Amino acid sequence: MLNTNPQAEIPEHAPDQRFKDLVLLRRMLMYTRKDDEYLQLVAPVISASATRILHTWYAYIIADPYLSNYFKPATAAEFAGSRFGEWLQQLCNRGGVPQWESIENAIPEDAGQLRPLQPELLRYLTAFAYPVIQAGNEVLQDSSIAAELLPHVKQAWFKAVTLSVALWAYTDKN
Amino acid sequence: MLNTNPQAEIPEHAPDQRFKDLVLLRRMLMYTRKDDEYLQLVAPVISASATRILHTWYAYIIADPYLSNYFKPATAAEFAGSRFGEWLQQLCNRGGVPQWESIENAIPEDAGQLRPLQPELLRYLTAFAYPVIQAGNEVLQDSSIAAELLPHVKQAWFKAVTLSVALWAYTDKN
Repeated sequence: MLNTNPQAEIPEHAPDQRFKDLVLLRRMLMYTRKDDEYLQLVAPVISASATRILHTWYAYIIADPYLSNYFKPATAAEFAGSRFGEWLQQLCNRGGVPQWESIENAIPEDAGQLRPLQPELLRYLTAFAYPVIQAGNEVLQDSSIAAELLPHVKQAWFKAVTLSVALWAYTDKN
Repeated sequence: MLNTNPQAEIPEHAPDQRFKDLVLLRRMLMYTRKDDEYLQLVAPVISASATRILHTWYAYIIADPYLSNYFKPATAAEFAGSRFGEWLQQLCNRGGVPQWESIENAIPEDAGQLRPLQPELLRYLTAFAYPVIQAGNEVLQDSSIAAELLPHVKQAWFKAVTLSVALWAYTDKN
């Protein structure tokens, strides 16, 4: 017998569920495809200045007794070469899923509720999002990006970093 | 018989519990008393430029189809005179609880878990926190605040706005 319910064919924890969560999180953050385009535009600028961003972030961490205890960073060079550097590059090179538009279209507006966010999100906002957004904004400000585009690309950068830390705080269970 | 468990004397939803939550949320956000001092320093600057911040925020809202639908703002003047103006003034004039230090000291580091945050926090971050933090930063940048203090006061402003929207998204129940 043909199963006409597509949900029944998706096993739990399949990528499809994660895509659905991602679409719902993007919608909640008001992260649109236009933001994707802006992020694609600035990704090379951010990526080329990744070391500068990591150095600014490192200075932010070591200036704060709480954060320096939390990260226990060694040197600026070691910090730039760490998994935080990888994270920054991933933020710039997400590239997008080729079928993203059809995936997004396939998920209806009433696709269900998002699960709660762990309160640790607040720590991530202070330790990761704030300094990385600020340092990225400085790079964008100093770049050759047209002045009228700056507010839009800064907003897209804010959304990309915030979405990334929100995913870390998005609970696995109901 | 003397009850030696102080928790047993605090009725549910008493202000004490809310103070405890506030202390734990501040700690999670790495919001320290030093940040309180920086915020106290900039509060008059922010407060005096509240209309400018509200106008910048209004421009941000009407430029975005999602946000303009969400807020349905009328005119910039009406927006500045709305409850969003009150919220901005409250952010600047929190003044602090006189006994804050002793309240904070009374809540141990292992005071328990924070409850989760509603996913709506992400919408609040885009709709409220981001534009208000950005507009506040511009005001602080143009103020007479000493250059070496700027990174600290901007960080305190970020924490104050973020704490405020986090409180809206902090769930009432387990």
